[in-house]
Amino acid sequence: MAVPRIETEMKIDVNGREYWLDHPLLVVVCMDGCADEYIDAAMSAGRAPNLTRFGAEGWRSMARACLPSFTNVNNCAIVTGTPPAQTGMVGNYILDPKTGNEVMTNSSQWLRNGTILAAAAKAGRKVAMVTAKDKLREMLSKDCDGIALSSEKAPEWIEKRVGAKPEIYSGDASLYVLEAGTELARSGDADFLYLSLTDYIQHSYAPDEPEAIDFVAGIDTWLGELDRLGARIVATADHGMNHKCDPSGGPQVRFLESELVAKFGDGIRVLCPITDPYVVHHGALGSAVVVHLPDPGLTEPIAQFLRTLPGITEVHDRDSAVRQLELPNDLCGDLTVLSGRDWVIGRRPEYHDLAQLHGELRSHGGRYEEMVPFFCNFRFEFVCNGASA
Amino acid sequence: MAVPRIETEMKIDVNGREYWLDHPLLVVVCMDGCADEYIDAAMSAGRAPNLTRFGAEGWRSMARACLPSFTNVNNCAIVTGTPPAQTGMVGNYILDPKTGNEVMTNSSQWLRNGTILAAAAKAGRKVAMVTAKDKLREMLSKDCDGIALSSEKAPEWIEKRVGAKPEIYSGDASLYVLEAGTELARSGDADFLYLSLTDYIQHSYAPDEPEAIDFVAGIDTWLGELDRLGARIVATADHGMNHKCDPSGGPQVRFLESELVAKFGDGIRVLCPITDPYVVHHGALGSAVVVHLPDPGLTEPIAQFLRTLPGITEVHDRDSAVRQLELPNDLCGDLTVLSGRDWVIGRRPEYHDLAQLHGELRSHGGRYEEMVPFFCNFRFEFVCNGASA
Repeated sequence: MAVPRIETEMKIDVNGREYWLDHPLLVVVCMDGCADEYIDAAMSAGRAPNLTRFGAEGWRSMARACLPSFTNVNNCAIVTGTPPAQTGMVGNYILDPKTGNEVMTNSSQWLRNGTILAAAAKAGRKVAMVTAKDKLREMLSKDCDGIALSSEKAPEWIEKRVGAKPEIYSGDASLYVLEAGTELARSGDADFLYLSLTDYIQHSYAPDEPEAIDFVAGIDTWLGELDRLGARIVATADHGMNHKCDPSGGPQVRFLESELVAKFGDGIRVLCPITDPYVVHHGALGSAVVVHLPDPGLTEPIAQFLRTLPGITEVHDRDSAVRQLELPNDLCGDLTVLSGRDWVIGRRPEYHDLAQLHGELRSHGGRYEEMVPFFCNFRFEFVCNGASA
Repeated sequence: MAVPRIETEMKIDVNGREYWLDHPLLVVVCMDGCADEYIDAAMSAGRAPNLTRFGAEGWRSMARACLPSFTNVNNCAIVTGTPPAQTGMVGNYILDPKTGNEVMTNSSQWLRNGTILAAAAKAGRKVAMVTAKDKLREMLSKDCDGIALSSEKAPEWIEKRVGAKPEIYSGDASLYVLEAGTELARSGDADFLYLSLTDYIQHSYAPDEPEAIDFVAGIDTWLGELDRLGARIVATADHGMNHKCDPSGGPQVRFLESELVAKFGDGIRVLCPITDPYVVHHGALGSAVVVHLPDPGLTEPIAQFLRTLPGITEVHDRDSAVRQLELPNDLCGDLTVLSGRDWVIGRRPEYHDLAQLHGELRSHGGRYEEMVPFFCNFRFEFVCNGASA
């Protein structure tokens, strides 16, 4: 139960912002894909007493995540305190402008700036970074002299302390992250923790389904443990989650590469930045895609065409994506396209294996998954009051 | 305590949708400007036990309101079950295309289709429509053979039953609506009620301020009374509410008519559809405006210019406004412009009397105030499951 003590107030400067390390145990939890409705449902059922108490005695609000609202984008934004224009992280899957190849971004080579975690470690904090999906582990621990592990590939030493690693397609994959983090805090092995969960449950179940409520109750229990250890906790999310189906329950999809090639000719590529190695969640269908064109002259006619399609809500050319979505100019493609609350955008039917989906499609990536819950177990003054925090 | 009984199941058809009137006491409450955060804060403080119970035993979710997210727009959408393209109600304040005059829309002459209230009354239900602001009373009771009253101008007969009318700039203006509605339900004078509140408190206070929590607690108490009477209740909102200030606490405003006239010349008019007779709330500053141009050739250059301005998030020409915002072609102006979560758009400084504001500016009208809470005190099956309800 020995909470590590620090002797003096410390301040670090990371990417132009100042951070104070004046608390002996700091914990940030990223509840992957945890739309506010999931918290509401668990609270209504009386299953989230710690989050309820944080709201009453600490702080509860909504925060604006970065767009496109995907996992890599916002985990990088959180650990660096900067938008994609600075992190260079614009999706899980991109067209590498140097090689012209399509690549997954699960490597710190794609993260362009430094992290708060690395800076805190350099300032003497005992940093631990625990993720559910292994894909995030190396990326987020860039240049960080500390512990970095995932529940997906939990090393033997942590299995000896908190038990065998769980199945990645499970709620336990996230609860294991919290359990490991709590163990590292309790033992004094870490005093500055970033704990990043996985959204398999939110992709698979609606907020009021028992599986989702049980899952949030599990998160709540571990947040209570961390609170009892004296941690100063911020719990937020990387993106929300919405039901992306038509009234019959089938996925409501536009296969945009098929549509554009049929109308404007070959050479048009549509990349789905939600694409990652974990296909069971969402079949690579999300609410944002990036369009790469063989000819810049096609930009405006295709943008105009896209704006007429049902389900498409925003079409940004490069300038607009840089200005409005804070994306880096060299990685945002020719057009960034967002879809509505109940629509997803795919590439061509053959790129998306919907047979692997558990239940009806729930996904994210667009404007309607941008606002995320934000809880603190302490009170503080914001620069702006109220909901703009 | 006599809840009126109906003998047979009744079905009405209004604007192409079917509604079943198979419950003896139906109540819809529009909690004006009640962003979900206001409910969360009151719940966290333990001050909303009835809404908490509705969430656990009935239904809690988010619903998508119409844009622009203003009071008249969404009260009309709720009572007709149709978007602005059909209601013709695009704001509180518009340019009348027939006369070229700027007018407030506080009259049923601006409502183009029929209401569920009128149809229910025609089918034999005892309909009552109670509003806080008198501006809504006549509009929403169009062709409706029933009770229609406002707390602002409460008639003597209701004052005799529930007390003297309250001040309109108060939380009591809304609680009086709920008290009057409950009295009409309890006495059997009404069995089909639409109760529409006012957002003075939400414009004036952040969700976690004591005044806001007390107000939501007051709403919750009356919802509990209606529940005890056996009513089937839906409680939702017409729009959300956000803090629209810069870090110093001052309103973050673009005075768009001034900017456009300076750059593109005279004759450009910017109308603020939030404008209504109740100026203390918001100084006529909201997150959506309509631009009328003297020359259609200006549409595209001005749209391009607007897209470069910080704070401006969406610019729709007439086609796009019709398609994406479901606005009527003849009333949507040349450009519809939305601003971000912490920005409002004004006309010229002299049109906006900010001296009358209570506290820091909180307002609505854009995409970030589109999602609203949705509570039922009963369970039912949606066509789509989960959060897309």
